[in-house]
Amino acid sequence: MARLVQQLATPELGQLVAQLSVRYEKYRFRELKLDLTRGKPSTEQLKLSDAMDGVLQGNFRASDGTDVRNYGGLRGIPEARQLGATLMNTRPEWVMAGGNSSLTLMHQLVHAALSHGLWGAGSAWSDEAEASGRPIRFLCPVPGYDRHFTICESLGIEMVNVAIGPDGPDLAELELLLADDPNIKGIWCIPKYSNPTGCVYSDAVIRGLAELPKRAGRNFLILWDNAYGVHDFEFPARPLPDLMSYADAAGTADHVAMFTSTSKITFAGGGIGFLAASAAVLSAFEKRLSASTIGPDKVNQLRHARFLDGRIEDHMRAHAELVRPRFDAVLERLERDLGGREIASWTRPSGGYFISFDTMPGLAREVVKLAADVGVALTPAGATFTYGKDPDDRNIRLAPTFPSVADVTAATEVFTVCVQLATARKLLLSRTDR
Amino acid sequence: MARLVQQLATPELGQLVAQLSVRYEKYRFRELKLDLTRGKPSTEQLKLSDAMDGVLQGNFRASDGTDVRNYGGLRGIPEARQLGATLMNTRPEWVMAGGNSSLTLMHQLVHAALSHGLWGAGSAWSDEAEASGRPIRFLCPVPGYDRHFTICESLGIEMVNVAIGPDGPDLAELELLLADDPNIKGIWCIPKYSNPTGCVYSDAVIRGLAELPKRAGRNFLILWDNAYGVHDFEFPARPLPDLMSYADAAGTADHVAMFTSTSKITFAGGGIGFLAASAAVLSAFEKRLSASTIGPDKVNQLRHARFLDGRIEDHMRAHAELVRPRFDAVLERLERDLGGREIASWTRPSGGYFISFDTMPGLAREVVKLAADVGVALTPAGATFTYGKDPDDRNIRLAPTFPSVADVTAATEVFTVCVQLATARKLLLSRTDR
Repeated sequence: MARLVQQLATPELGQLVAQLSVRYEKYRFRELKLDLTRGKPSTEQLKLSDAMDGVLQGNFRASDGTDVRNYGGLRGIPEARQLGATLMNTRPEWVMAGGNSSLTLMHQLVHAALSHGLWGAGSAWSDEAEASGRPIRFLCPVPGYDRHFTICESLGIEMVNVAIGPDGPDLAELELLLADDPNIKGIWCIPKYSNPTGCVYSDAVIRGLAELPKRAGRNFLILWDNAYGVHDFEFPARPLPDLMSYADAAGTADHVAMFTSTSKITFAGGGIGFLAASAAVLSAFEKRLSASTIGPDKVNQLRHARFLDGRIEDHMRAHAELVRPRFDAVLERLERDLGGREIASWTRPSGGYFISFDTMPGLAREVVKLAADVGVALTPAGATFTYGKDPDDRNIRLAPTFPSVADVTAATEVFTVCVQLATARKLLLSRTDR
Repeated sequence: MARLVQQLATPELGQLVAQLSVRYEKYRFRELKLDLTRGKPSTEQLKLSDAMDGVLQGNFRASDGTDVRNYGGLRGIPEARQLGATLMNTRPEWVMAGGNSSLTLMHQLVHAALSHGLWGAGSAWSDEAEASGRPIRFLCPVPGYDRHFTICESLGIEMVNVAIGPDGPDLAELELLLADDPNIKGIWCIPKYSNPTGCVYSDAVIRGLAELPKRAGRNFLILWDNAYGVHDFEFPARPLPDLMSYADAAGTADHVAMFTSTSKITFAGGGIGFLAASAAVLSAFEKRLSASTIGPDKVNQLRHARFLDGRIEDHMRAHAELVRPRFDAVLERLERDLGGREIASWTRPSGGYFISFDTMPGLAREVVKLAADVGVALTPAGATFTYGKDPDDRNIRLAPTFPSVADVTAATEVFTVCVQLATARKLLLSRTDR
């Protein structure tokens, strides 16, 4: 077995850097144009839902008789709410079926909580911020999803990094922070196949989260973005314990907002977003929402309900057949090129859209730049952290779903060379520095 | 010719009230359930677009090669932007094609102007409100559209009533108000077949409006809701002069935001909303928008573009064939029962969705209540005014498009009896009071 790069004598290390540089420079001439940046479904995945256009066959009536072509119905049609309930494993009466974006629902809900409050008169977070003279803050498990962080930034909410482990965030750390600051009003969670680590929150963590609003200042909100709830690619699928049931039992149901969408089930740009919340929160939100819309696109809701009725599992298995080989391609390359070398670590998810990769500290930016210079686009280093700043500069998110298996393989090969080159260079530099 | 009710001797007036009361009371036994409240297309109108579901026939590529099924593209696909440009008579590069609601775009744009500004650093209206210690205000031509007013209320913007005439708002009145208060930052306009009066703004008024931002404090915005731009039902159709061209020539293009939608062209709940604005304003807005969405439903945009391509005029003629008879039914009844009696006035639009009806002062609430009590639902009196308060309590909006012609006729008959009864009663009461 080859020695670890850390164990090489300095001349050998210099030789290794030279070898890797030659390999790296050769990529320039291949004029690659590869992209592992965004969690987008591949064209083959999108094709699985092509039959949705035309599925209504002239029947535009929802199960309750609503003409879906006309105005109205802020909570969505019954069968769409049932679809959302199935995807989130919750009750249809708690579900609002919206437009094409769960991100929009998240932004609108957080904005409503901030500006008007979701828990009756005097519950607006902004009032508390003003009264205390300090900003509203959110707990942000990191690495996490940059668009959650953007919502906070756009609404002037300060973010507090908390570490995420293989079972989810550390409850003790959360409770400590909450005890310290009643202005902490929310936490972003991606409970299943978390973006980017791919971890699934454990039952114990979810039970603990259901209790969390009791440890927090008033009007705390758990934002539960269950974007990958049915996006398993290894079976039997891992079930996600139901936060809402635990919260209901703990008396904290008014402090949970669950989200999902069909963006990675049907069409990424033309799906349906869902919110699930208690009756009280749904009513308060609906009231705010009515100032800006007459209702969601119910025609598209009916299309989705009819198309997916009774076949979600089969449909997601077909997705899995397309997604798994791409993850396998990345993981095999990573293992072959970097396995056992103690210069990097990465996650091995069994669902979702991402692999989280950690370099040695201080190298993520350098690796992303090296890759970009030879035509392999990676998510910007730091994007998975609040304010775009990874304090250790080591996390890189890999998103293998969109390119072909061949392109994923080629891109990962370039990536591992960049990681080895950056690592070897840095080690060499640190020795010459001494 | 019958004498005017005003000229009747008191005993005759008493007799008339008795006669009308008998007629009115008879309606109770008919257990009517008629509705002239909302500007909704009829089922027959919706059917005109049924072929839209399935129109893509497996081809999901936009003209620029975009796969409309996937994420991205905040401004919409080229052919949807072209559709919006055609509907608004403007340039496609100025158009953003959004989701299913132009109301949402209006709310988002006003919110962006308020909280962050659309005209560069330091242009947020909220900063000016804070610095001056006085609220931001909008000019609201009345009678107008309640949902515009709701946007203002939900965002804490004060509203100032201005009168609307047959050619649009009175420029002199607007300029006077603007000279007086630099915190007036916007005006709501429905320039063609205005809701509810049905008037079309004249060329002179539109030219004057293009100059208005020069008379206002900084960062003024004309909100041009051209919801009924192609919704003529008498031909030749009345063209609407292009505000954006005038504004461009006047150097005020950065202070115009035009809106329209296909809600009353295809599906009211499943259409496309459009915004047209200058490059600078579109960029500023897009930046704000990116915090809450990855992009609109481009699949539905492509459906619309393919379905309406080259046949908007024919399609709108088919709508006109369904809408005109309903307006005729109302107008004929009004003329037959109330014509020449000098107790009411109403508009006779040649397009759009509404008729604006004025009773004698102080009777609108009473008429709406009388009608409701015998099963005819009308838009609440006051709804067409800011804060839901008609200072003269005389305006009632009639919306005849949704019910059948028979129902529209029946509802209008009840309505005219209610108007006559309320008027005669009031006159009688005023004499007995003396």
